Amino acid sequence: MSRQLHAIVPAGGSGTRLWPLSRAATPKFLLDVTAEGRTLIQQTWDRLEPIVGADRITVVTGAAHAEKVSAQLPGLRQLIAEPSPRDSMPAIGLAAAVIAQRDPQAIVGSFAADQQVRGDEAFADAVRQATAVAADGLICTIGIPPTEASTAYGYIDGGDLLGVDGAQDARRVRRFVEKPDPATAQQYLAAGTYSWNAGIFVVGAQILLDHLARQQPTLHDGLRRIAASWDTPERQAVLTDTWPMLTKIAIDHAVAEPVSLDGGLAVVPGRFGWSDIGDFTAIDGTRANSTWIDADGSIFGASDVHVAVVGLHDIVVVRTEDAILVTDRAHAQQVKQVPAALRDQDRDDLI
Amino acid sequence: MSRQLHAIVPAGGSGTRLWPLSRAATPKFLLDVTAEGRTLIQQTWDRLEPIVGADRITVVTGAAHAEKVSAQLPGLRQLIAEPSPRDSMPAIGLAAAVIAQRDPQAIVGSFAADQQVRGDEAFADAVRQATAVAADGLICTIGIPPTEASTAYGYIDGGDLLGVDGAQDARRVRRFVEKPDPATAQQYLAAGTYSWNAGIFVVGAQILLDHLARQQPTLHDGLRRIAASWDTPERQAVLTDTWPMLTKIAIDHAVAEPVSLDGGLAVVPGRFGWSDIGDFTAIDGTRANSTWIDADGSIFGASDVHVAVVGLHDIVVVRTEDAILVTDRAHAQQVKQVPAALRDQDRDDLI
Repeated sequence: MSRQLHAIVPAGGSGTRLWPLSRAATPKFLLDVTAEGRTLIQQTWDRLEPIVGADRITVVTGAAHAEKVSAQLPGLRQLIAEPSPRDSMPAIGLAAAVIAQRDPQAIVGSFAADQQVRGDEAFADAVRQATAVAADGLICTIGIPPTEASTAYGYIDGGDLLGVDGAQDARRVRRFVEKPDPATAQQYLAAGTYSWNAGIFVVGAQILLDHLARQQPTLHDGLRRIAASWDTPERQAVLTDTWPMLTKIAIDHAVAEPVSLDGGLAVVPGRFGWSDIGDFTAIDGTRANSTWIDADGSIFGASDVHVAVVGLHDIVVVRTEDAILVTDRAHAQQVKQVPAALRDQDRDDLI
Repeated sequence: MSRQLHAIVPAGGSGTRLWPLSRAATPKFLLDVTAEGRTLIQQTWDRLEPIVGADRITVVTGAAHAEKVSAQLPGLRQLIAEPSPRDSMPAIGLAAAVIAQRDPQAIVGSFAADQQVRGDEAFADAVRQATAVAADGLICTIGIPPTEASTAYGYIDGGDLLGVDGAQDARRVRRFVEKPDPATAQQYLAAGTYSWNAGIFVVGAQILLDHLARQQPTLHDGLRRIAASWDTPERQAVLTDTWPMLTKIAIDHAVAEPVSLDGGLAVVPGRFGWSDIGDFTAIDGTRANSTWIDADGSIFGASDVHVAVVGLHDIVVVRTEDAILVTDRAHAQQVKQVPAALRDQDRDDLI
């Protein structure tokens, strides 16, 4: 196949639901939250490198994290440091524009830096099918078959099989919907045609830019301008001037939703274990150096401080050098309110 | 009055319900658990010294704690270091025997080192009345008017007023009872004649020894033998030989209960704020350096680690350098099971 897949890895997001493990200076993707000896971005690299090769992986991250990303990924050759966070569309769009500038036939896939996948072969198969669909001109997402009526994710309603060669499981997307309420999530789960939106999109780079030109012309023009300067001495100056003016918007809203309404979006099922490590309920804690009296739950973080829990259930304790979090599984999503409250208290040292 | 009151301060007990603040090496009485700048034994000293004078305070503590007690109480002149813990009767009995050896007319009062009192004048008044009763030949306890149907304390049922000069509130004790079940505690509270046994006893030293000679002759003889050697070069040798053979028994069982059956026990009401700092519900925690999201409770221990609690109520968090405790008010009594479990895990470093 002459059209090659390039992986774009947007490494943004602070992972505030994993505070105090995840901090502004060391967000979730830089952490080995699953205690496997590799951080989430390293695991992402390990998954993508065999599929696309090191030469065709582009990481887009905040300028503040560029150095740590480079240190964690010694094989990385293409790193785009965002001057400021402008959400996912400018990040992915700039990478796509730079790639298209060099290889107009390129297909790009965006793969978040902070997700966990179990089953590399099933992952590679889904990427292969999505690439075949993208080569056919559609935007192809990889949808995660839901295991529960989660309200934490957007849903993708898969319709008829597309019949694309090399993508036997690909279906046209009927609807692309935002995070539902619990009752609606239950309906989606029962319907059987919905999958979770994991934010994985595979699309011809030029096709993506064409969609952007129609849907977000200002953003498109800005990205093109930066990309045109990328391999010139003007890169930094143009980036610095243009980036702050780019529309701050997520790829879902900028492109996926409107394109789905025109039938231009496809979905292949991701038949692999998947987690976005959204909160502490998604990770296995440790029971090392702990005592539980009429209690249960799990512990995260440094293991050199003994933790004892008495008379409480489903408890989550996170111990770090400067902070302790205590919550339970039912309130794990609310943990993001802690860094927000700390900001109000001017405790940026703890964020 | 020619008969002088000597205060005996048994400083024992490990305060396992206050783990991890209270440790074997630094039990409750050595801690400033109420954050007043004075440890509990220092507060005990501050309360007794104006009443009896520094010369007439004897602290009895474990050999392991003698050095720390001396450091905390620079005015202390009489310290008895127990070779091993034999419960309260040998501790108080030895102090009483040593005091009686020097001053046969002495009255002794035992005042635990780890209680909190609010209202020094009311305390002094109760001690004054109890001393008058003791001078009259009875054992006088100071009973705490109950504020709730607690099952954590023994109860003392006060009968008729004694009519002792200088002890207008003293009553003869009808019954001296162990920690009751909740229903019985409720009856005691409703009856209005019961008070909590705070373990405060005031009695002529010679009277106490006479009771002991009848109730616990072996223990009495051992204590007499040690006391006779106390101001001689043989002290340490006799103590080392005799102490391990002393009957291990609480003063309540050894003397107070049997004497009460013979009408030899009196009670005066302690109309002061009182707490035995039994568990974390008895102390005010701090809210410094903490964040509460849909949560409430209190924090104890070092304040340099931020604590965030999310979605949990009545929570108790204790942070120390090497251990964190998480429980709630309802389970504060069960905290003592943690050091027990740690002993089973051979984690003596944490006890």
